[in-house]
Amino acid sequence: MKKYYIKDIYDIYKKLINKKIIIKGWIKYYRNSIFIDINDGTTIKNLQVIIKNKKFLVKEKEINIGIPIKVIGKLVYQKKNINNIEIIPNYIKIYKGYDLNYINNSILQNKYHKLSKLREEVYLRFRTNIFSTIMRIRSLLFFEIHNFFNKNKYILINTPIINKNNAEGAGEVFKITSLGDSNNLTSKDLFNNEGKLTVSGQLELESAMYGLAKVYTFGPVFRADNSNTFKHLSEFWMLESEIMYYKLKDIINLSIKLIKYLFKKILYKCKNELNYLEEYHNKHNRFKKLKERLTKIINNKFIIISYTKIIKLLKKVDNNIINWGDDIGSNHEKIIFNKIFNMSLPIVIYNFPKCIKPFYMNINTDSDTTKSIDILLPDIGEIIGGSEREISYKKLLKRIKNNNMNVKDLNWYLNLRKLGKISHSGFGLGVDRLIQFITGINNIRDVVPFPIYPGHI
Amino acid sequence: MKKYYIKDIYDIYKKLINKKIIIKGWIKYYRNSIFIDINDGTTIKNLQVIIKNKKFLVKEKEINIGIPIKVIGKLVYQKKNINNIEIIPNYIKIYKGYDLNYINNSILQNKYHKLSKLREEVYLRFRTNIFSTIMRIRSLLFFEIHNFFNKNKYILINTPIINKNNAEGAGEVFKITSLGDSNNLTSKDLFNNEGKLTVSGQLELESAMYGLAKVYTFGPVFRADNSNTFKHLSEFWMLESEIMYYKLKDIINLSIKLIKYLFKKILYKCKNELNYLEEYHNKHNRFKKLKERLTKIINNKFIIISYTKIIKLLKKVDNNIINWGDDIGSNHEKIIFNKIFNMSLPIVIYNFPKCIKPFYMNINTDSDTTKSIDILLPDIGEIIGGSEREISYKKLLKRIKNNNMNVKDLNWYLNLRKLGKISHSGFGLGVDRLIQFITGINNIRDVVPFPIYPGHI
Repeated sequence: MKKYYIKDIYDIYKKLINKKIIIKGWIKYYRNSIFIDINDGTTIKNLQVIIKNKKFLVKEKEINIGIPIKVIGKLVYQKKNINNIEIIPNYIKIYKGYDLNYINNSILQNKYHKLSKLREEVYLRFRTNIFSTIMRIRSLLFFEIHNFFNKNKYILINTPIINKNNAEGAGEVFKITSLGDSNNLTSKDLFNNEGKLTVSGQLELESAMYGLAKVYTFGPVFRADNSNTFKHLSEFWMLESEIMYYKLKDIINLSIKLIKYLFKKILYKCKNELNYLEEYHNKHNRFKKLKERLTKIINNKFIIISYTKIIKLLKKVDNNIINWGDDIGSNHEKIIFNKIFNMSLPIVIYNFPKCIKPFYMNINTDSDTTKSIDILLPDIGEIIGGSEREISYKKLLKRIKNNNMNVKDLNWYLNLRKLGKISHSGFGLGVDRLIQFITGINNIRDVVPFPIYPGHI
Repeated sequence: MKKYYIKDIYDIYKKLINKKIIIKGWIKYYRNSIFIDINDGTTIKNLQVIIKNKKFLVKEKEINIGIPIKVIGKLVYQKKNINNIEIIPNYIKIYKGYDLNYINNSILQNKYHKLSKLREEVYLRFRTNIFSTIMRIRSLLFFEIHNFFNKNKYILINTPIINKNNAEGAGEVFKITSLGDSNNLTSKDLFNNEGKLTVSGQLELESAMYGLAKVYTFGPVFRADNSNTFKHLSEFWMLESEIMYYKLKDIINLSIKLIKYLFKKILYKCKNELNYLEEYHNKHNRFKKLKERLTKIINNKFIIISYTKIIKLLKKVDNNIINWGDDIGSNHEKIIFNKIFNMSLPIVIYNFPKCIKPFYMNINTDSDTTKSIDILLPDIGEIIGGSEREISYKKLLKRIKNNNMNVKDLNWYLNLRKLGKISHSGFGLGVDRLIQFITGINNIRDVVPFPIYPGHI
């Protein structure tokens, strides 16, 4: 007699029919002391225990949603059951040690809780159907990102978390100190008071690219800004890739290929999860056709349009809303998706003005715009940013100086250009936001296991 | 005519014979102005260009190791060439913009440099044969770790980097602040002056396990200790897994299965890299049979022995060297591998005294030892630590108090035990050290892309 996880039972149930097996888990639902639904966390599907022999009836007092249980019994085929199988037990054990009061006053009670309520018990929400479903999709997405780059012969490079420089001038940085509880950052600090948490691995990744050609990094990055929106976190996961000899059009193609690949894998391997999420949204009057939306993106071309053109289109909607040279914000993104292109397709915007893009981007011959892209997704907005990199030592040096950045700190980066003019491009993808899009979940804090944002650790 | 990366050319060269192709890369070696070896970072193997038409001879002045070059030519089969193929060019272009003086005074000169010398130019060493080889093995190992857990239906959970508590009391922690250049950590800080860098994701991972049964986390962890040894870093990558219903023997089996799986994959997929490393070691009089050593471990049982027994064996060697209750240090590990078990096999030591293990480990009925393991590898020492976890609320509370830890901070962790007595176990693996072992590289700083250690960012 063997112990099985419920996921494994569903995966191979035909082989187990009429066999006696052991399962452990917790009670998810029960009625009439006869039906007990058990879950063990390996799948969203419960396994139903149906008590036919009165000897094994569990006393009403003893039974409660959320408490641990062990069942030994025969797995039987049952046409009427939506999952095809049930267990007829000949041994049932309730594990003690639980605190009924705690369980019944927690989010584990069998009723609907808002996602913001689940967030108050971040350590218990892994047991809820909605959050475990999101976590399964997240886990597969992470794996398939590695799978994509591995298949395409990229080398994974772990860029450092502890860092000296703020790569992009993008947002505020966290400072670190080894001086534990001391209140002063002095020179006795392990890193001479210069340690910061990375905002991007790009510059380091470029140096790896100069040796290994096709590289990517995938890890946590940090922003110390005090933003409390539905799409910002202090700590989030960023995928970045850098490829030798790639031009802007190659980066556009690669980004589109990656997004389509990931959506295909999610559609194929997370069908149960997507079905559950659609049901969940519909139940709460948010009608989201998640599968249809992913399928549409897989089967259609992305909209590709220049920054200058999108500004013109935005000004046609409202002349005062934006000017050439302004950054495209959330309010503009809404207009782009709802009024200009009402097609629920991703939009690739290219050639942004140099005044709103970082120093390392290659500049077009118009000398005003950069060889850059942003990719926007409906509802979510910017998901990818990328560019061709400046490869001329002189031009790069000039831009670092013009931006009032510290040349000394960036010398190592500048020196890479002394290896010769080797064109290269790269992009970064905010993975948590991609999970928001796939799952249709509104707040980024609900697609991350342990969300870190101002005031919340 | 298509552009190919060199790795792809070698992978499908039979299809490309007598075809005209484009390659780009940098000069790795040349002689007589006739032979030029080109590398593009995608593989350790160079591609040889052989100039038969004098029209395409490159001037001696123009040629230099390390400079970028583009070649268009016919790929031909050449039996005499160790790699089977060569290119006969009808177009050669040297890209300008390089700085000969910089290249010739860097580690890219064509001569042997010690690994410690390469570390001084961390941004260039990706172009050296030895370091790019290590990076390829590292990249595959990371991928195969995800592959192993994905295949076995584990859910990846990203435990947070910014953290409140020092999970294990294991080593010093870094503190973070959002107050940029201010010298005071005040309450205006985004995280109320409580933010620390994680030393382990285990406690958070346990909470995810209570909902998802089989989980793992894989990310950077940090130690603020001022240790400058060949096996310590301030920032390193740790794999941790936590599994519901697992007992100590299951954790031992899982750890062994994982190590054997990873070694098999490396042996099979990184043959070229291992061959190169063996050559490299032999050239510098360090005779390391890397492949043989991995094969032996794959094909043999690990040594499994209790802490109490290993102490007895150590005391037999030298009665003064250790006492029951002491931690096993590097000096003891050497004796264990060189004098006690001279077999180059991993050693699993179980049942460590509770006085040297953290508060969350389950205690044996002897009330002195814990249900714990360490796995040691020859040369490297401890690579894995794991245990069964304490599942009784009362016992856990008592140990937290006895250890003078803050009950309030750990309340969320304690509360998980109110869900009932659900046994579970887990382990952590220091991945950088595993790469040290596989590659035979002595210093951990040489197996990490950007090593962070005291004084060095």
